[in-house]
Amino acid sequence: MPALDGILETALYVDDVSRAAAFYEDVLGLKRMVGDERFVAYSVSGKSVLLLFRRGGTLEPVVMPGGTIPPHDGHGPVHFAFRVPTTELPAWERHLTAHGVAIEGRTTWPGGGLSLYVRDPDGHLVEFATAGIWPDVA
Amino acid sequence: MPALDGILETALYVDDVSRAAAFYEDVLGLKRMVGDERFVAYSVSGKSVLLLFRRGGTLEPVVMPGGTIPPHDGHGPVHFAFRVPTTELPAWERHLTAHGVAIEGRTTWPGGGLSLYVRDPDGHLVEFATAGIWPDVA
Repeated sequence: MPALDGILETALYVDDVSRAAAFYEDVLGLKRMVGDERFVAYSVSGKSVLLLFRRGGTLEPVVMPGGTIPPHDGHGPVHFAFRVPTTELPAWERHLTAHGVAIEGRTTWPGGGLSLYVRDPDGHLVEFATAGIWPDVA
Repeated sequence: MPALDGILETALYVDDVSRAAAFYEDVLGLKRMVGDERFVAYSVSGKSVLLLFRRGGTLEPVVMPGGTIPPHDGHGPVHFAFRVPTTELPAWERHLTAHGVAIEGRTTWPGGGLSLYVRDPDGHLVEFATAGIWPDVA
């Protein structure tokens, strides 16, 4: 079996890229690498890539000099999780609350990990998860 | 701004968890950590978590002793990307082809990275991406 090395890119489909970008940049502090009104790519602490696509904006193949990206699209409210250093979770809760983002759920996992859940502007369920939730994953 | 440490969990919503699991386990070799007919969690090389949820199976909050997971759901065909060591990409192409998985697209990126695109059983667009696509992301 050939090797994989984790997940590089996670995509969200949003109704309004500018509205979603304001949340992911101004509230969560993600670093924009490229983007326009149809699409934004963020570096998440230099380890992962979060992609925002306008819903219905990638229903046709994207043809570039180097090849073709086949079509894709999606509807939510989907779930994904950021990895958060355990010591940072209280600061995230204060930071999110200060920006008017409600904490919709909290979980203490059997292995000792902690999760906070909030909604982004499209209703996607965004988790802030510490180490310890998945013993097999660093 | 509090710190993040990458994306920990990426979720897909599928019509038939067993059918999707056969693809992700038998063809892609992912390691199942927990799972049942509604939900499976995979370790992707000990670095990321891929979650499969049965569509419509997480529309109610999940109440556990340690807290509550708010509801979520989704429809595709969404896009996500596995990170692949550059030297492994030819082996992935042979492996996928040998398992009857068609290569739907290929891209050579300006920075030198390479991508292959295939579909999972639900039509989700699965990319196998080497380093070099995103200069800001290791």
